[in-house]
Amino acid sequence: MSFNLVKTYNGGKARVGELVTPHGTVPTPVFLPVGSQATVKTLTPQEVSDIGYGMLLTNTYHLCLKPGIDVIEGFGGLHRFMGWDGAILTDSGGYQIFSLAGLRQISDEGVTFRSHIDGSKRFITPELAIDFQEALGADVIMVLDECPPIDADFNKVWRAMSRTHLWAERCQKAHRHDNQMLFAIIQGGVFLELRHQSAEYLTSLGFPGYAIGGLSLGEPKKVTWSVTEETITLLPEDKPRYLMGVGSPEDIVEAVAMGIDMFDSALPTRVARNGALYTRTGRINIDNGEYKKKEEPVDSDCGCYTCQNFSAAYLHHLFNCKELLALRLATIHNLTFISDLMGDIRKSVLNDTFGSFKEDFLKHYKPTDEEVRLEQKKKWLQARNADN
Amino acid sequence: MSFNLVKTYNGGKARVGELVTPHGTVPTPVFLPVGSQATVKTLTPQEVSDIGYGMLLTNTYHLCLKPGIDVIEGFGGLHRFMGWDGAILTDSGGYQIFSLAGLRQISDEGVTFRSHIDGSKRFITPELAIDFQEALGADVIMVLDECPPIDADFNKVWRAMSRTHLWAERCQKAHRHDNQMLFAIIQGGVFLELRHQSAEYLTSLGFPGYAIGGLSLGEPKKVTWSVTEETITLLPEDKPRYLMGVGSPEDIVEAVAMGIDMFDSALPTRVARNGALYTRTGRINIDNGEYKKKEEPVDSDCGCYTCQNFSAAYLHHLFNCKELLALRLATIHNLTFISDLMGDIRKSVLNDTFGSFKEDFLKHYKPTDEEVRLEQKKKWLQARNADN
Repeated sequence: MSFNLVKTYNGGKARVGELVTPHGTVPTPVFLPVGSQATVKTLTPQEVSDIGYGMLLTNTYHLCLKPGIDVIEGFGGLHRFMGWDGAILTDSGGYQIFSLAGLRQISDEGVTFRSHIDGSKRFITPELAIDFQEALGADVIMVLDECPPIDADFNKVWRAMSRTHLWAERCQKAHRHDNQMLFAIIQGGVFLELRHQSAEYLTSLGFPGYAIGGLSLGEPKKVTWSVTEETITLLPEDKPRYLMGVGSPEDIVEAVAMGIDMFDSALPTRVARNGALYTRTGRINIDNGEYKKKEEPVDSDCGCYTCQNFSAAYLHHLFNCKELLALRLATIHNLTFISDLMGDIRKSVLNDTFGSFKEDFLKHYKPTDEEVRLEQKKKWLQARNADN
Repeated sequence: MSFNLVKTYNGGKARVGELVTPHGTVPTPVFLPVGSQATVKTLTPQEVSDIGYGMLLTNTYHLCLKPGIDVIEGFGGLHRFMGWDGAILTDSGGYQIFSLAGLRQISDEGVTFRSHIDGSKRFITPELAIDFQEALGADVIMVLDECPPIDADFNKVWRAMSRTHLWAERCQKAHRHDNQMLFAIIQGGVFLELRHQSAEYLTSLGFPGYAIGGLSLGEPKKVTWSVTEETITLLPEDKPRYLMGVGSPEDIVEAVAMGIDMFDSALPTRVARNGALYTRTGRINIDNGEYKKKEEPVDSDCGCYTCQNFSAAYLHHLFNCKELLALRLATIHNLTFISDLMGDIRKSVLNDTFGSFKEDFLKHYKPTDEEVRLEQKKKWLQARNADN
């Protein structure tokens, strides 16, 4: 288990590396598809692998509720349970406990919360978070953190950060398995002073990787980037840097330029299921009437299974009929787009052409309007919480 | 385009043949998976083919409403539109118009009905049904028929049958394309006298294939079988016989024994999406708690992708989480079960062991209780109509 920095772009901070895990070597920068419930929605593990992914993310919180850690432990871990031979990162559940679960009671000892599924009372501590993740057997596991809402005030964020530090230390002590890397999560909200404190404290403990948590929660992008950029300056060169919950194609390109190595987000798969498909010029909505008779694929330059085999008109028809195949084909397309993007990024860093690649990509790719984006994010968070 | 009778079982009426189409030779007895809206729900055409299917059914009624016949005609037909190279049979839409659509006004000329999707007014005649199916380009097309409800009285069924005869003649006259076989549909409800009349009249017109329609609509099985058996005696030996809307594994075996060559039904795929999976001993429900930790596949003897790659516990988990992959994996399993069954049937006819095969199959396969079955059918028909 190690991270090898292969090359830093000679015109900036973008870098290429490799994360060596018991389930394969993963080239970075890497995007992890999200399979919270031990499945990347709509796809088989084989399809995820065929698209080009060697690592994915699953979620301790979700798996703890269903099917239960004991069931997966009975299979010797997640890899066998879900039939995935590649690398896995498990999130500790911190983010979900603070955003999804109900009735939280938090103390330094741990958190009592209610399952968003059946309301049952659960308790988790840093030590239990490690126990669970050891039983799940992921290649990279995360500390339990407290993730305050993005509009929390300085004092609240400071308390959450301090507790996150305490818990990180306890996670580190509880962690036994040599074949799992335990990453720390830097908190501190939108306050640069706290991000400094968090990065300094956690790096002093010495983890094999560092995540930046508590961002992409609805704050303006300007804030996301200033916090990310500032935090990275305090992270060691030789350890992987993971920006949690990002994201969109344009955000990935920006964050790579700042020196981020790892990403995860449900965005590409979630918007796919809503009919929003990535192209080099931006997202298109396949529901749009202009695709009703289009014989060409969604993106003529795309080599994905969907674009190689089906017309835009057929996809339009499937979405129009709410056919389940629509969701699969759109997911394959969007995950291929992101996988190809990561490949292009790595190539351009290795060739020292990342600067012009980034400029060219951002010139052609029209991102979703910021206002629309924040509105969508809000709606999605509300809809998700209403499901509880 | 032809049907070749290869062999009749020396102990009865079961037979093996081949349906030669412009999109491949299809061995019979054959089961056609249902892809009403130009997709077998949840699966890619490649997966349907990989399972072992060379022919499927799509529905003129559904395709007429979405995406519209003109869209598919623009692609040169269904094969290219949906990316399926095998043979296709299109149902004419008669059954759907009489069971799904609203506000029907029927005359000898044709039917005016309202789309169950948007309430728009549509008109169809036998000639239009042929036009539509020629534009769709299926290998086997069906006459427009009037399909009365199973509880209709003798006079009503007689009138519907008479109109079906008139329409069959007009369909035959309107039909031009040599590369499509037009099958007639025998009606007559549960009245043997009418079934006689219908079979005699339609066979006198000379079609390349004959379907038995108006069954499996909620009548007791005893009735289904007496009508089927009686009707078959009046059909020519050298033409394919198609029992529409059947069905379950046990019904397929029974009907083959009577001399049926072709089947279609949404049952195996529909029950799959409800978590009911076929095994040689009957249907199991994967939701059942007994599967929560089962490391073996659903059926250890099954060679399908699902059973070869995933445990029953993983399927149980996916269904429990309402994950979309569950629906795919269950569909693959059930369609494989039926495909394997058809293969076993054909082999046993060729080997003259069909009698013992049938006995053995029915001894082990516990069918769904008749009362439960009728209740489920009623509920499903109601739910479907409530969607209108």
